[in-house]
Amino acid sequence: MSLRQELLARPGRKVRLAEHDPGNTLGFTDKLAAREELEANVRRLAALQYRLFAEGRRAVLVVFQAMDAGGKDGAIRRVMSGLNPQSCRVTSFKKPSEAELAHDFLWRIHKAVPARGEIGIFNRSHYEDVLVVRVHNLVPKAVWSERYEDINRFEKLLARNDVVLLKFFLHISRKEQRERLLARVEDPERNWKITPEDLEERKYWGDYVRAYEEAIERCSTGHAPWYIIPANHKWFRDLAVSQILVETLEGLKPKFPAPKFDLSKVRVV
Amino acid sequence: MSLRQELLARPGRKVRLAEHDPGNTLGFTDKLAAREELEANVRRLAALQYRLFAEGRRAVLVVFQAMDAGGKDGAIRRVMSGLNPQSCRVTSFKKPSEAELAHDFLWRIHKAVPARGEIGIFNRSHYEDVLVVRVHNLVPKAVWSERYEDINRFEKLLARNDVVLLKFFLHISRKEQRERLLARVEDPERNWKITPEDLEERKYWGDYVRAYEEAIERCSTGHAPWYIIPANHKWFRDLAVSQILVETLEGLKPKFPAPKFDLSKVRVV
Repeated sequence: MSLRQELLARPGRKVRLAEHDPGNTLGFTDKLAAREELEANVRRLAALQYRLFAEGRRAVLVVFQAMDAGGKDGAIRRVMSGLNPQSCRVTSFKKPSEAELAHDFLWRIHKAVPARGEIGIFNRSHYEDVLVVRVHNLVPKAVWSERYEDINRFEKLLARNDVVLLKFFLHISRKEQRERLLARVEDPERNWKITPEDLEERKYWGDYVRAYEEAIERCSTGHAPWYIIPANHKWFRDLAVSQILVETLEGLKPKFPAPKFDLSKVRVV
Repeated sequence: MSLRQELLARPGRKVRLAEHDPGNTLGFTDKLAAREELEANVRRLAALQYRLFAEGRRAVLVVFQAMDAGGKDGAIRRVMSGLNPQSCRVTSFKKPSEAELAHDFLWRIHKAVPARGEIGIFNRSHYEDVLVVRVHNLVPKAVWSERYEDINRFEKLLARNDVVLLKFFLHISRKEQRERLLARVEDPERNWKITPEDLEERKYWGDYVRAYEEAIERCSTGHAPWYIIPANHKWFRDLAVSQILVETLEGLKPKFPAPKFDLSKVRVV
């Protein structure tokens, strides 16, 4: 079974994160070999990206979600550096602005959907509106509970318009999060990004687990699957994400289009 | 003298492209060594990009202009793949849309200016409005001739707001363009992008040369310099662009900021 099949959250199945070991490496043990495989995958991705761009028929949208310190930034840096930034755009969804809050929750998301030929990457996404929003009761349950169906319908619209969706939940343990936060405090290249809220959110771990379980359970669909990536080991996380991307893009078999006019008539003087 | 100083179009000086040899490699001869140096530069750029992002005080805006087949796409791919797409965004300015034409020429440009901490790359730019627009008389001379000062003032505004500007003119010979267009016709991975207009534009070579000369002459300033990059040799072009970028970013000495609050009080439970 491929990594892609093994890590897929099967549509319609119950999700219990406790049953997914965040330290799992699915039999991979050689970290160095994994890094080499990652590099090969990045090169394959760059070649596939060029074909996808040339073809100009389909877009790819990759969503990253995780608990704090779960490795979204790291996975994006490790897997996506190497792509041509010309047809790859990352959008980081932060706390919504006043203008964004004055619209429905999908408004800012829709604007950032990649065009045909592009690879779009979402660092956080519309799922925050059934995660942090739910955990902190930022809107009543009657409001957020409607959003799962909004999301499914929205993602179906995208899929019908040739946006190939992949959603990665980077799954770490509570203990791993603690170690990462402590390491961050010590590191002058990273401690500038710690906010008091990061540490505060940790108290809601259980609530977040339940919110993620429901989001993945209700919104992992054939046209927009969720993958639960064991992410305690960064090297395995990056290998798994890159492998699933390569398998997906290879499956699309993007083709160079025919010339736009009869090239036999071309004279370059 | 550094590559950066040698290739700078000095502010206030006359520009005669005929005096700039597009086949120049400034003494570099070893293509393989140049490729290795390029790779080292890309790694340096990625590290500098992270510091720039962490610092969050300054943006970098890199403008690419060239004749058709001059190598804008290639230079962006070769020099910028390796950057983290999370804080690097490429904007390609194509033929303006109806909505864009319903505004002044800087409107669509302003929207794409990078934010503090980001690296923005323009594939074509506001300079098209004194290049293709001038060559084809798309607006009267009275309109386009005002734009040089608009551009200088606009770029000064950006510079005062901590946008570090660099503008690269990738300079190829007419003969090199011909060879590249012919090679493109033969290549199934690239012939899909040829349009009849590409071949048509070649007839206006002389007009474009004069338009570039005036644009570079009038708009190479201390705060937004133009560099004339000899670009007949792709390996030298990429080396020169990467080298000038590294020198510029190193000169900025971006620093990691201090933590946002007193980390000695942090308890991770």
